[in-house]
Amino acid sequence: MRKTAILGIGQTKIDEHWDLSLREIGGNAAFAAMQDAGLEKVDSLFVGNMLSSTISGQNQLGTFFSDWIGLWGQEAVKVEAACASGAAALRSALMAVASGDIDSALVVGVEKMTDKAGRDVTSALATASDADYELEQGISFVGINALVMRRYMHEFGWKHEDFAPFSINAHANAMHNPFARLHQKINIKQFENSSMVATPINLMDASPTGDGAAAVVIVPADRVASVKGKPRITVAASASATDSIAVHSRKDPMFLSAAYTSSKKAYEMAGVTRDDIDVFELHDAFSIMAALSLEACGFAERGKGVRLGLENEISRNGRLPICTRGGLKARGHPVGATGVYQVVEIAQQLRGECGETQVDGAKIGMAQNIGGSGATILTHILKAE
Amino acid sequence: MRKTAILGIGQTKIDEHWDLSLREIGGNAAFAAMQDAGLEKVDSLFVGNMLSSTISGQNQLGTFFSDWIGLWGQEAVKVEAACASGAAALRSALMAVASGDIDSALVVGVEKMTDKAGRDVTSALATASDADYELEQGISFVGINALVMRRYMHEFGWKHEDFAPFSINAHANAMHNPFARLHQKINIKQFENSSMVATPINLMDASPTGDGAAAVVIVPADRVASVKGKPRITVAASASATDSIAVHSRKDPMFLSAAYTSSKKAYEMAGVTRDDIDVFELHDAFSIMAALSLEACGFAERGKGVRLGLENEISRNGRLPICTRGGLKARGHPVGATGVYQVVEIAQQLRGECGETQVDGAKIGMAQNIGGSGATILTHILKAE
Repeated sequence: MRKTAILGIGQTKIDEHWDLSLREIGGNAAFAAMQDAGLEKVDSLFVGNMLSSTISGQNQLGTFFSDWIGLWGQEAVKVEAACASGAAALRSALMAVASGDIDSALVVGVEKMTDKAGRDVTSALATASDADYELEQGISFVGINALVMRRYMHEFGWKHEDFAPFSINAHANAMHNPFARLHQKINIKQFENSSMVATPINLMDASPTGDGAAAVVIVPADRVASVKGKPRITVAASASATDSIAVHSRKDPMFLSAAYTSSKKAYEMAGVTRDDIDVFELHDAFSIMAALSLEACGFAERGKGVRLGLENEISRNGRLPICTRGGLKARGHPVGATGVYQVVEIAQQLRGECGETQVDGAKIGMAQNIGGSGATILTHILKAE
Repeated sequence: MRKTAILGIGQTKIDEHWDLSLREIGGNAAFAAMQDAGLEKVDSLFVGNMLSSTISGQNQLGTFFSDWIGLWGQEAVKVEAACASGAAALRSALMAVASGDIDSALVVGVEKMTDKAGRDVTSALATASDADYELEQGISFVGINALVMRRYMHEFGWKHEDFAPFSINAHANAMHNPFARLHQKINIKQFENSSMVATPINLMDASPTGDGAAAVVIVPADRVASVKGKPRITVAASASATDSIAVHSRKDPMFLSAAYTSSKKAYEMAGVTRDDIDVFELHDAFSIMAALSLEACGFAERGKGVRLGLENEISRNGRLPICTRGGLKARGHPVGATGVYQVVEIAQQLRGECGETQVDGAKIGMAQNIGGSGATILTHILKAE
């Protein structure tokens, strides 16, 4: 199996892009990544996207984008795994390059969500849950997460305000990320007093959706040298695991077994332990998910994930900096694009390009992307070499 | 790059399955393939599907099915490339196993199309075209193909009835395939007199959609031995190519450049020429597509694809038997499943399991799956060893 590396990265600002179409948003990130990689052509294109068929009436996004960005004739495909579509597309690309059948791949995670009314987007997002046994009962995606959060608070004795540090940290970091959706610092009072979405999840627990795209260029690692003093970014691990699609089918709805399995595989593959991770971009779609991810990946004991926030371990200078570019909470969550944003951000940290939110001496970074309510989880570990 | 093989195959009858849900249809094909392979577990699941988000309100089909068929925890993903989703999922699985990162993969192509009214299905299928520049103008998918067929007839001087042999051959072969959608022989009179869909395409030029699923189990070739006198089926080539998504952007709308490129790559990869192909399952979504595919893959000169039908070269005893299990025209076209059905059928031919439509001594078979109006085309070559 060939070792792979990230040769180029690109991203667009996450926003309500009324002036840009689906193809322009994805194209802009793709062009940025190709330019960063110094390439004019790649062998193949892997697109991560969840909602274009429902929201934009457009399927076959692989070819849709290979056509638009000038990769005429080249192989192209779309990969979908709900909100984990971005990382799933990346993993498909990594295996394709690792197989030797393809020598270079462009991965684009893209989502255009604001072309429909909010209620239509809520319905579209609910297709990530079990249509027959969850969606059909009328529960929304945030509703499912709210049930899990309430149970967690009850079981482990945490109050709503104990989750505040996750959102405060994310918003503070996003202030220094020009691509972030929200540039607005928040305090605990604002966290507690914001509008309720699905109790106990309020607006400050929930990540904003949006239009956006991120892209990376993947090549065999032996074709990459460190350039201009920037380290070579290699892919040390790529792992994917699943759980039941419906939350009610799980023995313990508060344990992200797919995060546990995929992070365990990833640590082994990369030859590291959790203590070696310098920076972690986790999937804080809701504040409860930050706590559950930290626990499943071994950074906190069961029921104690919120402590890392309360003890200030998650900020830039803490033991485990997370959401350093704003996370889903403040960078934004254009669902099928998110997994690629996370990997772009880890690459930025390892290159030392993060300015005010740079983690000093970051050499090993992890990104974890979650589809559905913990149903599909991918973990990637990158190394600066 | 590791060589791969097909260890097991499975399929369901294509029909209007009012009594079966999306998960049951896909599950039934998956169980059949696993049983045929003699395996209880595989490392990973790749699902090919185009329409479940629109028609069944269900995304994240990888995990949806890994959950249902008992592959709890295992990696799973959905791959989409419009009507080429099945072959695209297969190719992703092949590269994953070839990379060495995964040791076994189940590929399921599945589609449940009859849960919505016909007009909704027509709209959903149109998402395979360019939403901004084709779909938005109100043209349907069959309408686009009708424009191409009319131009072809004009340019090369063929009459509508000259396309009849493709459909007559497909219907005759489907009589012997218990999984086929249609069991009804047709003659030239019925071909000419059937209802018009989009002139010059009538019902007998067009393939029927339906509910169905097909599945294959992929493993490294060195783990497969010939069993019970049946040959080992190896994957000699897998290739994918694209064209512009909109037909009007092509220099020549009657030339399937992605079929040309992917078949050329596949011949080279397999170390064969077109004359070595014993049986060819092509993508006859419309009769015009059969002619264009034969030309692009080198079996006929430009504008002369219909001759192979008129000269009876495409039947079981002809120079190049095609659609031996009924093709899209009569076996049926459950869009995202079709590419996997084709590969299952080639495997059946190479195993010698096709009874009345068995191609004598078939050793090398080719399957070609087309997404959109020739926008994404994958070619696979299998060998009996």
